Amino acid sequence: EKFCSQCGTELTRMVPPGDTHERDVCESCGAVHYQNPRNVVGALPVWEDKILLCRRAIEPRYNTWTLPAGFMELGETTGQGAHRETIEEAGVNIELGPLYTVIDVPHAEQVHFFYLAKVLDPALAPGEETLEARYFRPDEIPWEELSFRTVITTLEHYLHDRETGSFPMHHYGIPIPPPKRRPA
Amino acid sequence: EKFCSQCGTELTRMVPPGDTHERDVCESCGAVHYQNPRNVVGALPVWEDKILLCRRAIEPRYNTWTLPAGFMELGETTGQGAHRETIEEAGVNIELGPLYTVIDVPHAEQVHFFYLAKVLDPALAPGEETLEARYFRPDEIPWEELSFRTVITTLEHYLHDRETGSFPMHHYGIPIPPPKRRPA
Ligand SMILES: [Zn+2]
Ligand SMILES: [Zn+2]
Repeated sequence: EKFCSQCGTELTRMVPPGDTHERDVCESCGAVHYQNPRNVVGALPVWEDKILLCRRAIEPRYNTWTLPAGFMELGETTGQGAHRETIEEAGVNIELGPLYTVIDVPHAEQVHFFYLAKVLDPALAPGEETLEARYFRPDEIPWEELSFRTVITTLEHYLHDRETGSFPMHHYGIPIPPPKRRPA
Repeated sequence: EKFCSQCGTELTRMVPPGDTHERDVCESCGAVHYQNPRNVVGALPVWEDKILLCRRAIEPRYNTWTLPAGFMELGETTGQGAHRETIEEAGVNIELGPLYTVIDVPHAEQVHFFYLAKVLDPALAPGEETLEARYFRPDEIPWEELSFRTVITTLEHYLHDRETGSFPMHHYGIPIPPPKRRPA
C-alpha cells in the first residue's frame, strides 16, 4: 500500500504508538492501515463414490485440478462462501456438510477451510474460472496435477477417513515449501 | 475506502467485468480493491481448575471480561496469533493446546478461533489493552459481564466438555443479534 485509502496522502511505514507491528500510517489523517490474512473457503463435493474436481482457468496454477474454492467475501459465513464458490466454479447443486479441514498457510497469509458436500444432481455447468469440471473415482485422482497442498491434504484425509467411516474436523498447517531442487 | 492505495486516485464502486460482487475499482490504474473478513484468534488458558480472563482496557466492550484474543497478523498461523495475543494481553506463560472453537460471525465480518491452553506459570503481567487479568473458578465466571458471544459460547462448550473429559473441535456460527428490547 502506497497511498491512504481515506484521504489519498502518501503513507509512512512505522510502528504506531502502543502497537507491536509496523503498519502503513497516514501522517495526514492519522489512519492506520492494517493488513490481515485472508480466508479461502471451498468444498469437497462427492457424488456416489466420486469426487468433483475443477481444472483451473485462472492463475495461480492455471490448468491444474482443484477442489472448488475461493476467497471468502464480506458478510458471509465460511459455509456460505464454500457453497457460493462451488456453484460459481462448477455450477453444481450440492448440500453442504460439516466443516472438514481448517488449514493454516502462513507463507501465503491465508487460512483455508474445506467443507464436505453431497452432490444432489451430478449435472455440471462450469463457470469462467474453470476449464473443465468432472468426477474422479479415488484411483483416478490426478495427484501430480493438483493445484495446492491444501487440496492434496484434504483429499488424503478424506480417502483415509472413508476407510473408517468417521470424518472428524482436521486442523493442521502447511509448512513453508522447500526450495525447488535443480537438476544436477 | 475512498482513494486507491496504489496510485491515490479517487475510487469508483462497481462490479468489475467477470466478477459477481461490487468492489472499489481504480479507473486510473485499474486496481481492484478487495475487502475480506478478518480472523480473531485467542486462547482459553487454564490453571488448575481455573480459567484466565482479561478485563478489556479498549473499545469495543471496554471494562468487560474476555478470553485473550485479537486480530490475526500477516505471516502467522492462527495458533501463533492466539499465543501472541495471550502474551500481549495477560503476560502469562502458556503451552498452546489444540484448536477448540471455530466460529463464524458474519455480521461482524469475522471468523473467531479459540485454542485450549495450559498455563505453565500463573504469574500475570497484563498489557496496555488489559485493565486486569485474573483466574476464575467455573462458578465465579462473570457471565453477565463477558465481552462477546464467541467468548460466552467457547466457555460454555469448555465447561460442558469438562464433564465428559473429551474436547473435540467445535464449529458453529453466531446469528445476527436480535434488536434490543426497549422498556415499555
Ligand atoms: Zn489519510
Ligand atoms: Zn489506482
